[in-house]
Amino acid sequence: MSIAARMNTFVEDLQEHLCRRLEDEDGAASFEVDDWTREEGGGGKTAVIEGGDLFEKGGVNTSAVEGELPEHMAEALSDAEHEVEPAPFFATGLSLVLHPHSPHVPTAHANFRYFALGEDRADPDDQWFGGGADLTPYYPRLDDAQHFHRTWKAVCDRHPRVADYEAFKEQCDDYFYLPHREEARGVGGIFYDYVRNDPEATLAFSKDAGEHFAEAYLPIARRRRTADWGERERAYQELRRGRYVEFNLVYDRGTKFGLESGGRTESILMSLPPEVAWRYDARPEPGTPEARAQWFLQPRDWLALSPEDVPEATSPSARPSTEDENPPRDA
Amino acid sequence: MSIAARMNTFVEDLQEHLCRRLEDEDGAASFEVDDWTREEGGGGKTAVIEGGDLFEKGGVNTSAVEGELPEHMAEALSDAEHEVEPAPFFATGLSLVLHPHSPHVPTAHANFRYFALGEDRADPDDQWFGGGADLTPYYPRLDDAQHFHRTWKAVCDRHPRVADYEAFKEQCDDYFYLPHREEARGVGGIFYDYVRNDPEATLAFSKDAGEHFAEAYLPIARRRRTADWGERERAYQELRRGRYVEFNLVYDRGTKFGLESGGRTESILMSLPPEVAWRYDARPEPGTPEARAQWFLQPRDWLALSPEDVPEATSPSARPSTEDENPPRDA
Repeated sequence: MSIAARMNTFVEDLQEHLCRRLEDEDGAASFEVDDWTREEGGGGKTAVIEGGDLFEKGGVNTSAVEGELPEHMAEALSDAEHEVEPAPFFATGLSLVLHPHSPHVPTAHANFRYFALGEDRADPDDQWFGGGADLTPYYPRLDDAQHFHRTWKAVCDRHPRVADYEAFKEQCDDYFYLPHREEARGVGGIFYDYVRNDPEATLAFSKDAGEHFAEAYLPIARRRRTADWGERERAYQELRRGRYVEFNLVYDRGTKFGLESGGRTESILMSLPPEVAWRYDARPEPGTPEARAQWFLQPRDWLALSPEDVPEATSPSARPSTEDENPPRDA
Repeated sequence: MSIAARMNTFVEDLQEHLCRRLEDEDGAASFEVDDWTREEGGGGKTAVIEGGDLFEKGGVNTSAVEGELPEHMAEALSDAEHEVEPAPFFATGLSLVLHPHSPHVPTAHANFRYFALGEDRADPDDQWFGGGADLTPYYPRLDDAQHFHRTWKAVCDRHPRVADYEAFKEQCDDYFYLPHREEARGVGGIFYDYVRNDPEATLAFSKDAGEHFAEAYLPIARRRRTADWGERERAYQELRRGRYVEFNLVYDRGTKFGLESGGRTESILMSLPPEVAWRYDARPEPGTPEARAQWFLQPRDWLALSPEDVPEATSPSARPSTEDENPPRDA
């Protein structure tokens, strides 16, 4: 079977597997699945979970689309080393975003995709893989960041011909960065794109990575979901979710490209968090857990750090500075 | 005095005047003012009102900035008729966004700006005006849309040499449109840009427009703010505010340009609504007031319509389809 066909099968199997695992973990809600087709060729399956016990909103999407690559997309996909020409294309991938209910449980995102160009899908003129996984905690913890990164480092280390944890971690830090906020989206993970050498080995790496998402993320969700939280933590989570929206709508290539190319809007924007807030110039009081969280929003070598490197919150009971000025959500 | 200096004085006076008027109208909250300066030259004043009785969040910003226009900005400002070259520039303007608390009161936006290029600000090599005002109701009403448009038509009609209501209304419809949703942001208003002919007359038009914003908007706010609303209307308002965020972060030139050029982030993003929701594929039940609202989200010639042209909600008590599936905001 061609790489394209095997990647596509993997992506579909992974969606089923992850939806089952995530439902089991949630315990309350289940995924609703929408099948959709695309006029120009292909389609996808959008699986969404809402109002769960663990997951307030989450989606696991797959798509497999084909068509004729337009000139402006070919240009956008070209770089100094590889010129991409308009040609028949095939793209398949899985994309997932999980927005937990509890502010103590991080938001997670992962994506595994494959792109091929040429008349013959079994023998493409050009083909590459992209993907990655990253973690966006609200109340970040070093041990969580380390568990997440350690999992991805182990996956990368098993595929040394095509994967390089250090490089992929750096690309993740570069990609998930908000210049207008001068901060990272979260504590990163791995990100890779245009991996062209050795498609066979990269397919194996993609599968290994996809199959380890649950192991990278669920232990963190499990140990944080029972922690207490209230209005203060919720207000902070909603503000931070605003940054997530800013990243996805202003910078994310997948989102912009998807919307511009007439992709299925609801599948693309399932990545947006369920309840979000923006307040003018909201800044946490120094010494609070919310201020301490900022320390985690700069790229750091998590695996080289120890607990004593992490600043402590000195006034954990202080309230975020904007809270008093704003009415409660249902006022 | 130069056009630049007079426009700048007007913008500063209008900010003071509007903050007073809007505070009076709100009756509970007042504007907090942040003065900021820009390293490259100039600065601004950001006035924000939050947690009011009428206004949940609103801002009236002014800025006057100067510097050397970079090549990529010059390119972005060029069109088929006017090539803009890198040169010293001066820009001044006022921008306001009002997000009312009640879902029955529309969100409003207005902007009045001036741009000059050349060594001598009193005798610029090139200069133009831009601006406009638009209305985004949640539960739209024809009489509100008509009052808003009628006010702007009257302003335009007083300045026939530089303003054309029909053309400006159409530009507004074109600009405030979300292609990925196939809908307008609201019921429009007027939008103009690169108005170069007769700066003296355009300054007079800008002033007249700025001075009539309160008349265009406040009567609508006044007659809708006392209407009852509850969880259902709030949930719908929060979903619609999501579309506002999508427009501002994905399409709005001012926002993109501001963030890219290193503008003051909190002043630029004060336009974002305070509390916002995204739910997967949320669609109002046919016949509900929320479904009826969609009819207003296509460009229409409001002033030519009568009440019988507007579809009626046939099942006003039905609840939006997604409400039952989602926990209340503070759950």
